[in-house]
Amino acid sequence: MNQKIEDYLVNNRDTHLSQLKDFLAIPSISTLPEHKADIEKAAEWMAESLKRLEMDNVKVYETKGHPVVYGDWMKAEGKPTVLIYGHYDVQPVDPVELWNSPPFSAEIRDEKIYARGASDDKGQTFMHLKALEAILKTTGTLPLNFKFCIEGEEEMGSPNLPAFAEAHKDLLEADLVVVSDTGMIEKGKPSITYGLRGLCGLQIDVRGPKGDIHSGLYGGGVQNPIHALVQIVDSFRSEDGHILVNGFYDDVLAATEQEKEEFASLAFNEEGVKQELGVNELAGEKGYSYLEQTWTRPTLEVNGIYGGYQGGGLKTVLPSSAHAKISCRLVPNQDPSKIVELLKQHIIQHLPAGVDVELTPFDQGYPFLTPIDHPYVQAAGAAYEQVYDVKTTYIRSGGSIPIVATFTQLFNLPVVLMGFGLPSENFHAPNEHFHLENFDKGLRVLCHYWNDLAKM
Amino acid sequence: MNQKIEDYLVNNRDTHLSQLKDFLAIPSISTLPEHKADIEKAAEWMAESLKRLEMDNVKVYETKGHPVVYGDWMKAEGKPTVLIYGHYDVQPVDPVELWNSPPFSAEIRDEKIYARGASDDKGQTFMHLKALEAILKTTGTLPLNFKFCIEGEEEMGSPNLPAFAEAHKDLLEADLVVVSDTGMIEKGKPSITYGLRGLCGLQIDVRGPKGDIHSGLYGGGVQNPIHALVQIVDSFRSEDGHILVNGFYDDVLAATEQEKEEFASLAFNEEGVKQELGVNELAGEKGYSYLEQTWTRPTLEVNGIYGGYQGGGLKTVLPSSAHAKISCRLVPNQDPSKIVELLKQHIIQHLPAGVDVELTPFDQGYPFLTPIDHPYVQAAGAAYEQVYDVKTTYIRSGGSIPIVATFTQLFNLPVVLMGFGLPSENFHAPNEHFHLENFDKGLRVLCHYWNDLAKM
Repeated sequence: MNQKIEDYLVNNRDTHLSQLKDFLAIPSISTLPEHKADIEKAAEWMAESLKRLEMDNVKVYETKGHPVVYGDWMKAEGKPTVLIYGHYDVQPVDPVELWNSPPFSAEIRDEKIYARGASDDKGQTFMHLKALEAILKTTGTLPLNFKFCIEGEEEMGSPNLPAFAEAHKDLLEADLVVVSDTGMIEKGKPSITYGLRGLCGLQIDVRGPKGDIHSGLYGGGVQNPIHALVQIVDSFRSEDGHILVNGFYDDVLAATEQEKEEFASLAFNEEGVKQELGVNELAGEKGYSYLEQTWTRPTLEVNGIYGGYQGGGLKTVLPSSAHAKISCRLVPNQDPSKIVELLKQHIIQHLPAGVDVELTPFDQGYPFLTPIDHPYVQAAGAAYEQVYDVKTTYIRSGGSIPIVATFTQLFNLPVVLMGFGLPSENFHAPNEHFHLENFDKGLRVLCHYWNDLAKM
Repeated sequence: MNQKIEDYLVNNRDTHLSQLKDFLAIPSISTLPEHKADIEKAAEWMAESLKRLEMDNVKVYETKGHPVVYGDWMKAEGKPTVLIYGHYDVQPVDPVELWNSPPFSAEIRDEKIYARGASDDKGQTFMHLKALEAILKTTGTLPLNFKFCIEGEEEMGSPNLPAFAEAHKDLLEADLVVVSDTGMIEKGKPSITYGLRGLCGLQIDVRGPKGDIHSGLYGGGVQNPIHALVQIVDSFRSEDGHILVNGFYDDVLAATEQEKEEFASLAFNEEGVKQELGVNELAGEKGYSYLEQTWTRPTLEVNGIYGGYQGGGLKTVLPSSAHAKISCRLVPNQDPSKIVELLKQHIIQHLPAGVDVELTPFDQGYPFLTPIDHPYVQAAGAAYEQVYDVKTTYIRSGGSIPIVATFTQLFNLPVVLMGFGLPSENFHAPNEHFHLENFDKGLRVLCHYWNDLAKM
C-alpha cells in the first residue's frame, strides 16, 4: 500500500479515535422515542463528516421515521460506483448496570474501545469515512465513485429504508454495495459474509379475565392466560429443537454438501462459545452442527415473555393477560410474510379454551445470499489477505441486515459484506466493544480494496 | 332473640358504623413497610376497643413482624371458651385510580360500606366486638368465655402467628375457634365454610448465557432460557388441566359422593362467573364441576412470568434468564412441604439442556377441613337460620387462611368459619365493600350463637 496513506493513518490515529468517541457519545437509540433528538444529532454528525470529506450532494433525507444521510463523490469518470451502506443508530443499553463503563462515554481498555455502537455499527461505518479521507488527503482524489447511504433505523429492522431506496433508485444506483456491519469468524481470520438470515416476528397478547383475579377463589376453574401462552409457545418447538409450525421448513434452501464441508473445515471452536457465554452445553436443533444451526437453519425464539406478578415474593393472582414477543430468523428461500401467516395459523389452532389472543406482526426482512465467485467479491477477499496475511474465509451469519436483501432485490447488484467486528464483541448487549486491531487493519483493507477495484 | 339486645343494636347502629369508619380509616397495609406506623395504630385501636369492652389481659404482643392483639373475658365459670380470630391488616389498594371513593375514607352507598378492609377483615372482626358489647350492655354479662386473637399479618400469609400461637398455647387455649373472614356463597344464602385450600409455591429462576445475547448470531445454537422455562411450565399440566407432577394427587382426599351432590344442589351460577370475569368459557380440569375444581381439587398456577425484552416493539435478544412464580392451592390431605419437594423433583427431571435452575420456596399453609357434624358447627348453622330464615349451606372455599389449619393442628379444636362477606365484594381489589344487610344480620347471628352455645 501507498506509504503516504500508511503514514497518514498512523499519524492521524489519535484524531480519528477521538472523532469516533464523539460519534459514539450520541445516544442514538432508534427504538426509544425519547432519543429522537439524539437520532437527529447523529444524522447531523454524519452529514457534517461527509461534508468535511468533500462529498457532494450531502443531505439529511427525512423519512416517515428517522432520517437517511446521503453524500456522494462522482469524479472518477469511467470508474465503477460503490454504494456504502451503514447505520448511525444503536441498540438500547439496558441493563445499564451491567456495563463496566458508561455506554455513551467510550473508553479504550486493553486496545478495545467500549461503547454502544463501537462495533455495531458506528465504528465500522466511521472506518469508511476515514479510509476515503486517507486516500483523498494523500492523493487528492479517489480511485472510484462513492455514494454513502447511512440510515438511522437498522436496529428497528429498517422499516422506512426500502421505500426510500425505491423512491431514490437513481440516486442510489451503483455497481456494487459494500456493507461493514458483520464480523469475522474469529480473531485474526478475515471473513466475507455471503449469507444472512432474514427476520420476522409477532407480538402475542393473550387475554383472559378482565382483571387480575384471586388464585384461591377462582384457581382451577378459570383459564390462566400465562398457562395458555406457555402452551402456545411450547407447541412451537419439539424437544430436539425442531420447529413444529406446519409448513415452516417448506421453502428452506438446504446447505450444499460443499458448504457443509467448508463449514466443517473452519474447525469452529464450539468450546469457545460455551466459555464465552458461560453455558455448560450448546443446545440447538438436533442433527446439525453449531454453524449449520446458526447459519443455515431458521429459528423461532421468544425474545421476551411477561405476565402477572413480577415483584418480590408471591402474589397469588391469576393475571388478566400474558404476553410474548417471538421472532424467527429465516434462511433462503423463506418468505417472511408467508412465515408470519403460518405462525398465526399455528397459534389460532393451538389457542387453549377460555382466552383470546391478539397477534401483531413486527417488521420483516428477507434472507440474503450473494454469489461468492463474483470478481468484486473475490477482490474484497484478496484485499483482506494483503493486510491480514491469512486466507479469507467465506462465511454466513446468523444475523439479519434486512436492507441487504432489499438492495440485492432492488438493484440486482452484488452486495459485499466486509465486516470487521468479532463475535465476542457484545453487539446488542452490555459492554459492546470493538478491537482496535481490526479498526486499524480494516482501514488498510478498505484502502487496498478501492485501489484494486480501480485497476480491474 | 332478647328484645333488649335487638333494641340495643338498632339504637346504636349509627354509633357502631361511625366507629367502624374510624377503624377503616387506618391504612394498615401489612405488606408495605411504609405503613408500619398505621399497622401499629390499628393494633392500638383494636386494643383500646377491647379495653372499652371490659376485656381483661388486653395486650399488644410484639412479634418478629406486626403485633398480635389479645384480650379475654373468662368470667363464665364452667362454660366453654371461644377463641375469636380476626385480622386488622388489609391488602394494598393499587390501582387506586379505580376506586370510586378513597379506600381509606369509608363511604356508605346503596346500603354498602365501601373501603379497603370493609369486608376483609376489619368489618367482620368489628362485628364480634359489637355483638359482645350488645350482650354485655344489655345483660351485664356474657354467656361464654371469650378470647380474642387479632393479628396484623394475615394478608402476608401470617408468617409469625404460628410461632406466636405455639409460644402462647396456654393463653390461646379454648374449646372452639370462630373466624369471620370468609363469605356466603351468594346474597341471602348463609354459609359455613368447612374446607379451605392450602398453599405452597416456588420461584423458578432459569439461567442460561451470562448476559443477553444476539438472537441472530447465536439463535438456533444456544438454549433460550425462556424456552427452557416454558418447557418446564408446560410440563406441569396436561391440556385437560390435570397436573402431571409425579405423586401430586397421591394424598388428595376425594370429595365424597354426598359432598358432590350437595355442591350440585347449590345450583351454582357458572354463567355469572363468566360474566363477572368477562370470559367466554370456564376452562378447568376436565371431569369436575366448577365448584369441585375450585373447592376440592388442587391447582398449579403460574402467578407471574418474566424474561427478556418487555418494551415496545421487538428486541432480538436471547435473554440471559427467565423467571416464573408458581403456586399450588392444596386440598386435604396434601402436605405443602411434600408437594414442594415433588415440584422440585419434577423441575429437575424436566430441565432442558444448556440452562441451570434455582428454586426458592415461598411460605406454605396446610389445607383445612372441619367436621360439619360437630355440635358447635351445627349450632352455628342453626343461628344463621334463625336470622336469615333460610337453610344454612355448608360450603368449601378455594382460598387459603393458613392460620386456620395451624389452629386446628395446634389445638385439635373445631374451627367454625362464620363468614358474612359476599363473593362480589371485591376482596383484594378496588372498591372493596360490605353489605350492611349482612353486617346487621351477622350481629344478630352471633348473639344467637353465643346464647345457644351456652345452653348446650
